[in-house]
Amino acid sequence: MALLKALEEAKDGTRAALSEVLDALPYNAEGLVAAIAQDHRSKEVLMLAWMDRTAIERTLNEGYVCYFSRSRNTYWRKGETSGHLQKLVNLRFDCDGDALLVSVEQTGPACHTLRSNCFYLLAEDGEVVVYSAPQA
Amino acid sequence: MALLKALEEAKDGTRAALSEVLDALPYNAEGLVAAIAQDHRSKEVLMLAWMDRTAIERTLNEGYVCYFSRSRNTYWRKGETSGHLQKLVNLRFDCDGDALLVSVEQTGPACHTLRSNCFYLLAEDGEVVVYSAPQA
Repeated sequence: MALLKALEEAKDGTRAALSEVLDALPYNAEGLVAAIAQDHRSKEVLMLAWMDRTAIERTLNEGYVCYFSRSRNTYWRKGETSGHLQKLVNLRFDCDGDALLVSVEQTGPACHTLRSNCFYLLAEDGEVVVYSAPQA
Repeated sequence: MALLKALEEAKDGTRAALSEVLDALPYNAEGLVAAIAQDHRSKEVLMLAWMDRTAIERTLNEGYVCYFSRSRNTYWRKGETSGHLQKLVNLRFDCDGDALLVSVEQTGPACHTLRSNCFYLLAEDGEVVVYSAPQA
């Protein structure tokens, strides 16, 4: 965290080694940080999933977003089976290092329900409304 | 989770009671779900923080975003001390209920470093670059 604290005050353009930042991230008890995927053109927030250090490195090295699946306890290149890949545009860490934002070029729907994104349950007047149907 | 599973297949416009959805969320061991804040006009992803059931209810009832601070172990209406409030535009749950997206009208910078958002550490060619300076 000392490195992240130092970067808080750093000037625009300051650089640090990626490996040192990866060492400094406050991974949770499962070794994970939260990763938000955003469509780089529409700016739609697509989904939230999880990455460990290896998933972050794979994402950066392979150019396609790779999460760590908590339910399956394994790496999961998004779209590997569905074809709904997320091509990486860029990856950013937040100030305290427990969240990432990946800007992506999304192929097909991001949600496993075949909706364009996972956030289709809208709170409204004491109810929750399903406000987008799965894509045909 | 049965309710969330049922809503996955539900038609656009289907409604459920908010209290039942709040009962069904898969809160983590700390009783929390992740909450992403997005600026409703610019679509900029501002920050990621955490909410428990009460924080979600306060956010919806008060119309300003309220998180649960893990470091301070208390509720935290964003901007309470800094004035950098997040006026709620809408709140959405994701398919599996462990993440929320709050669309907000942000007053001032969202990040405690006085940057407009928290995601200012860009991974680039084996390094991490600070790419936005704090606002004056």
